[in-house]
Amino acid sequence: MTQHAVLYYAPGAASMVVHWLMLELDMPHELRLVDTAAGAQRSPEYLKLNPNGVVPTLVLDGVPRFEAAALAMTLADRDPQHRFAPAHDDPLRADYHQWMFHLANAVQPLLRQWWYPHEPAGEANADNVRASVAPRLAAAWERLDTRIAEHGPYLLGDTVSAADLYLAMLMRWTRSMPRPATDWPHLNAFAQRMRARPAFARLYEAEGLTEWTNAPATATA
Amino acid sequence: MTQHAVLYYAPGAASMVVHWLMLELDMPHELRLVDTAAGAQRSPEYLKLNPNGVVPTLVLDGVPRFEAAALAMTLADRDPQHRFAPAHDDPLRADYHQWMFHLANAVQPLLRQWWYPHEPAGEANADNVRASVAPRLAAAWERLDTRIAEHGPYLLGDTVSAADLYLAMLMRWTRSMPRPATDWPHLNAFAQRMRARPAFARLYEAEGLTEWTNAPATATA
Repeated sequence: MTQHAVLYYAPGAASMVVHWLMLELDMPHELRLVDTAAGAQRSPEYLKLNPNGVVPTLVLDGVPRFEAAALAMTLADRDPQHRFAPAHDDPLRADYHQWMFHLANAVQPLLRQWWYPHEPAGEANADNVRASVAPRLAAAWERLDTRIAEHGPYLLGDTVSAADLYLAMLMRWTRSMPRPATDWPHLNAFAQRMRARPAFARLYEAEGLTEWTNAPATATA
Repeated sequence: MTQHAVLYYAPGAASMVVHWLMLELDMPHELRLVDTAAGAQRSPEYLKLNPNGVVPTLVLDGVPRFEAAALAMTLADRDPQHRFAPAHDDPLRADYHQWMFHLANAVQPLLRQWWYPHEPAGEANADNVRASVAPRLAAAWERLDTRIAEHGPYLLGDTVSAADLYLAMLMRWTRSMPRPATDWPHLNAFAQRMRARPAFARLYEAEGLTEWTNAPATATA
């Protein structure tokens, strides 16, 4: 009997890229909601699964695993038919590694500073942190916009990969910022393409998400 | 004619994991020093190679590439004989992804806050940032120490991988902190194993590094 993968998630959190990818891959899975607002990710039971105290955790073949980008990479590699990762002998594989780690190492940590601005220097400096991180994030979006403009429509060119799901998730986290990532035109077009995917609608349905959609065209008289 | 890889590096910086791995793989390469103290990583010439303005950049098959962890992963995969990465059908591959991304996403960004403490909230808050990041780094080392204790002697168990080179590099960056990573006993034993590798001596020679070695046993009377 095949054991279903079990995803511990919170709506719209870093678990989203893993969930979205499982839907793209038509991969059977169970969802378990982690009430992060109530701090359930720091409960003794959850810490046994994931000592980092964050979502996601994915129980895969009976083993609890963490790090969203790593999980996405593992799942994409295990299902070569759906082509969400370049094969290992594909010249694009090096690009794929580069963009996955760029998002994980350079972009996501800046978003963490924005969303948890008390962490770097205490509650009294939360506004300072946000003021400092905003231009650094803007520079990151500017570089990604240039990448999509010159080598798009996706990060690796013509075909979508797990790196695009990851990028779209991070962009979504900026939707209420003074300058959301969709302010950059090529990133905005990229977001529209990603949100038009049928699996994106299934993701929103399953996680109960509503914000950051492709709004229907407004009727004009 | 094979084109040699060209590594743009600064001694002991994030380029170190790439350099070290090339030495482990006996991979021909050229080194080009980037004078980061003088800001050469932000020169127009360098930014053409790497728009992020950081080291390393590795020119591989004529293409400039960035993100140290991504480069390490790409080089290890291209040389399966040296076994610095589990093969794609190896059950350890998922572990490998997990630890590579954990270091890139959770550990390295904390070290960046320690070493560039003015970034998150301005120069006036540098001390606050360091005070805040120290316990978070300690928690990260504690978890990694537990991992090595329970599943070591390396991150993936019995065999060394690129993830261990990456971890050793990050640990080295803590050598002058109030609580260096070698304060944790299993991490300390891990550091000794990694520093005993012949390629580590070649790395130190090539980069002119001296600090953080396996000190010779002190003669006792």
